[in-house]
Amino acid sequence: MPISPEQAQEIADARSQQNTTMRATVPGMEQHLYTAHEVLDHGFIRVIDYMGDDSAICQAARVSYGKGTKSVQNDEGLIRYLMRHWHSTPFEMCEIKLHVKLPVFVARQWIRHRTANVNEYSARYSILDREFYIPAPEHINAQSVVNNQGRGQILEGEEAARVLEILKADSTRAYDNYEAMISDEGQDGLARELARMNLPANIYTQWYWKVDLHNLFHFLRLRADSHAQYEIRVYADAICKVVADWVPAAYAAFKDYRLGGAQLSGKGVDCLRRMLKGEDVTQETSGMSKGEWREFMGVVGG
Amino acid sequence: MPISPEQAQEIADARSQQNTTMRATVPGMEQHLYTAHEVLDHGFIRVIDYMGDDSAICQAARVSYGKGTKSVQNDEGLIRYLMRHWHSTPFEMCEIKLHVKLPVFVARQWIRHRTANVNEYSARYSILDREFYIPAPEHINAQSVVNNQGRGQILEGEEAARVLEILKADSTRAYDNYEAMISDEGQDGLARELARMNLPANIYTQWYWKVDLHNLFHFLRLRADSHAQYEIRVYADAICKVVADWVPAAYAAFKDYRLGGAQLSGKGVDCLRRMLKGEDVTQETSGMSKGEWREFMGVVGG
Amino acid sequence: MPISPEQAQEIADARSQQNTTMRATVPGMEQHLYTAHEVLDHGFIRVIDYMGDDSAICQAARVSYGKGTKSVQNDEGLIRYLMRHWHSTPFEMCEIKLHVKLPVFVARQWIRHRTANVNEYSARYSILDREFYIPAPEHINAQSVVNNQGRGQILEGEEAARVLEILKADSTRAYDNYEAMISDEGQDGLARELARMNLPANIYTQWYWKVDLHNLFHFLRLRADSHAQYEIRVYADAICKVVADWVPAAYAAFKDYRLGGAQLSGKGVDCLRRMLKGEDVTQETSGMSKGEWREFMGVVGG
Amino acid sequence: MPISPEQAQEIADARSQQNTTMRATVPGMEQHLYTAHEVLDHGFIRVIDYMGDDSAICQAARVSYGKGTKSVQNDEGLIRYLMRHWHSTPFEMCEIKLHVKLPVFVARQWIRHRTANVNEYSARYSILDREFYIPAPEHINAQSVVNNQGRGQILEGEEAARVLEILKADSTRAYDNYEAMISDEGQDGLARELARMNLPANIYTQWYWKVDLHNLFHFLRLRADSHAQYEIRVYADAICKVVADWVPAAYAAFKDYRLGGAQLSGKGVDCLRRMLKGEDVTQETSGMSKGEWREFMGVVGG
Repeated sequence: MPISPEQAQEIADARSQQNTTMRATVPGMEQHLYTAHEVLDHGFIRVIDYMGDDSAICQAARVSYGKGTKSVQNDEGLIRYLMRHWHSTPFEMCEIKLHVKLPVFVARQWIRHRTANVNEYSARYSILDREFYIPAPEHINAQSVVNNQGRGQILEGEEAARVLEILKADSTRAYDNYEAMISDEGQDGLARELARMNLPANIYTQWYWKVDLHNLFHFLRLRADSHAQYEIRVYADAICKVVADWVPAAYAAFKDYRLGGAQLSGKGVDCLRRMLKGEDVTQETSGMSKGEWREFMGVVGG
Repeated sequence: MPISPEQAQEIADARSQQNTTMRATVPGMEQHLYTAHEVLDHGFIRVIDYMGDDSAICQAARVSYGKGTKSVQNDEGLIRYLMRHWHSTPFEMCEIKLHVKLPVFVARQWIRHRTANVNEYSARYSILDREFYIPAPEHINAQSVVNNQGRGQILEGEEAARVLEILKADSTRAYDNYEAMISDEGQDGLARELARMNLPANIYTQWYWKVDLHNLFHFLRLRADSHAQYEIRVYADAICKVVADWVPAAYAAFKDYRLGGAQLSGKGVDCLRRMLKGEDVTQETSGMSKGEWREFMGVVGG
Repeated sequence: MPISPEQAQEIADARSQQNTTMRATVPGMEQHLYTAHEVLDHGFIRVIDYMGDDSAICQAARVSYGKGTKSVQNDEGLIRYLMRHWHSTPFEMCEIKLHVKLPVFVARQWIRHRTANVNEYSARYSILDREFYIPAPEHINAQSVVNNQGRGQILEGEEAARVLEILKADSTRAYDNYEAMISDEGQDGLARELARMNLPANIYTQWYWKVDLHNLFHFLRLRADSHAQYEIRVYADAICKVVADWVPAAYAAFKDYRLGGAQLSGKGVDCLRRMLKGEDVTQETSGMSKGEWREFMGVVGG
Repeated sequence: MPISPEQAQEIADARSQQNTTMRATVPGMEQHLYTAHEVLDHGFIRVIDYMGDDSAICQAARVSYGKGTKSVQNDEGLIRYLMRHWHSTPFEMCEIKLHVKLPVFVARQWIRHRTANVNEYSARYSILDREFYIPAPEHINAQSVVNNQGRGQILEGEEAARVLEILKADSTRAYDNYEAMISDEGQDGLARELARMNLPANIYTQWYWKVDLHNLFHFLRLRADSHAQYEIRVYADAICKVVADWVPAAYAAFKDYRLGGAQLSGKGVDCLRRMLKGEDVTQETSGMSKGEWREFMGVVGG
């Protein structure tokens, strides 16, 4: 249960605001504002604020390219053109601010995206809540045997049960001891900045995260990808749904060119052309390594 | 006349919007939205969009410092605390988007502030307008004789007149030739990306510039400073007025701690303490160079 | 003649250093150090310093991916893997510092790449030299009629001659007047920060530019591209040659995956698969716009 | 014992290199290269590479300010001038690459400094070592009662012993269970990316961290400060020693103006002047809050 009754009331209060503005508003985003979209067992994402819409992207592009953009008939076509040609600055004209609650090990991956603004809950100043990510049984996988970074098949039966038991028991014990150390009943109480070091990486933290649309797309391209770790991918997926309602044309272009597209090397382009001319290209005649060939086949559907 | 009748109509149209939103709005900023504040002879700044307010800064700080912020009674005190202790991330939670029209030599200084988003009018794609910055007579100064980077006394009489004449004549000739080269009447017309190289640095360009409040304050600290070149300082001054209406508490803290404050070196602190104990400290006994001493005296009012 | 005898002597002096270091050195880069590679009529690039080599990229990757990288047999294969999968951080471990002399209108494009460190010659403090970019006759083109941002055919005969004459005459006059305004003979002399506004965009400036390899590759991908303006592309080409000698494996991977590669949209991948299965796909049946189809045909060689 | 015999051998091998270069070298840094400076119980910092020296800062400044810098007699004076006037770009021309081993809770603070390049050991790909930070008894403090973020007096006797016992026992148990879960003896073995979530924040991680001197100084100003948490401050202190040997003039200026200096508000400057004129200013007549007054008194030595 990620949202407490107190928080639910705060959200309802925030959503009851009726302000008048001359700024652009997006009805689809107004629906999302403040509402918590639940992710994992205790996490969520919430839209706290947004700036701009599809029109703001086009407006910025038209400042840059001036009369040059008149040839593109409409906003959707212009946005597709910008996306296809990696014109990133018009997308930077939109901004979003999210409130995210997430396990620490997910936060550690997330923060690697540096071009964003962050205010995280500080365990130096405050006491963390007793909330830990415990995977659902269908998300407990073995180490992949073909891929050093991935998950293999789902663990079943006893082994999965043992894993769950360990995670729960260790979380509970770590938190009990955290509480015992900082308690000032009958003792001085350990400094919070020290006590926090006993807490495992599946404890939840939260932050405000503000990012422009270009950098958000970069984040989503990497984290909504099938190779991303499941626990961060679900956050990326939840954000994708929000973005689709915020800037529908930009999101559609992103989906086609980035999420659904493919990158070919010069060797790949060469092989492709030979194949289209009827040649029976094999890995041996492709000039590619086995790994590259396997990925290339994944694109051309061989 | 920086604003054409066509643009004035566009602004009036934009200002006639009445949208409803659950986001925070700032009445003072709604007054500024879209309106052009004139700067120099053909320039302006316009607020195109904004995100956040004083409360958003506190909200982010309270996420970070949690219960730690309860001891600070009110938002104003909290904001002063954040400013005093260089806590920059809560200020990053506010964002502003401006439309700026400015001479190219000002734009070249401005763009050195890298942490911002920019879409500039492109002279590769489009034809620039015939608009040049010609200084008002009271802003035509001699090279400073004490400072390599500054202006000295105002040029008067004939010399000032000669400067104005040169700037006007050269601008006119450069633009006439620019037009002649790109013209496709009776000839092919030179590529715009080449023709633009004939235009001097006092021609006006324009851009959309989006920046967070922390980085904006950094820009304003350097550019609203008395050592900044007059032609960029007037833009910074115009932006200061807008920011004062947008985030009054943050702007007041910025004004006190950054614009009106002073930085002392370790040597300066030491001298100060000696002076307060009654010692008659001189440059010779201060351990400072002449330049440092002069600046230190400027702070302590000696 | 971009290099003065005085500068040539400085370069020779710098190149006569023989320092001993435990850092990695790259013989190919030592050959380039300090030497000026001429670009355009008065410009150059010079390598002033560098950090890291191909091994540094692999070393960083192996810290990140640990035992996971053992399966990749050699540095070259690992670097290709990193490039293919957009792992950017290992490339950020290499850094280069260049001294560049370039026309102002090229500098204005260049500086849009924000993730770099720059120290530019300041016309506020110092007097610029009388050096202007005047295109060679074979680089004076008409405005493209198919593309708003490009050049069309070469201008020939009288029109080209007229363009050259204008550029030369206006540069000369602008500089003469610049000199006249700042002169302190028989007058006070206009402040340099004001006088510079009379100078056109083809005057040369210079800067130190420091950037990491990942961001340099991003710059080169955009600026060594055939759609980039000729006058910046020649700088990118000159840098490419240096990088090829600095990090040969990384450069080869960059060339194959970025410069020589292609990006396909989801629609493009779909069409490709249909074509490989023998279907005769046309623009009408592709689901693409005319512009997209034309670019897609450019990739598949149709 | 942070350095294994294997690592010691690698360091000795790296230090036995004798390369010849035309780049600037700094004897003081060559002494540091590759050597591990121990920090906390299992951590270290090591210099892996560096670019530039005090001269490189001046060289860049002289490009920017040209003849304007001739009036400053020597490099040391110029560097002090740059530091005093917040001219940051010349300091960005120096770069350092460090190998750091540090507890995860320290790494989480450290990474908030975004303008740097990082490659961290990945627990998704690789197995972490059994190494945990256990504070020395003299660094186990109670929560401060006057300051929400700080430490109070040292915990003594039984309470300190109990804290140590908890930290050791919980670390051991967490790691035992981590090993048990990933083991593939008699079971499939849990994916590493999942198993890592059981590890507490005092486990050690390591990374390559590359940063320019300006941003490093910003990091050191915040983290070598007496208000920084002890466990990150010792890393900052160790880096300070290295920087003092790398760029002695820049470090001396940094120490005087940043570490040893003080920032006054406009109100503070006003009070100061009144005090120097003999007025007996009190908190009540200062216009400052109690907190501001206390900090102001800390500067003026009241």
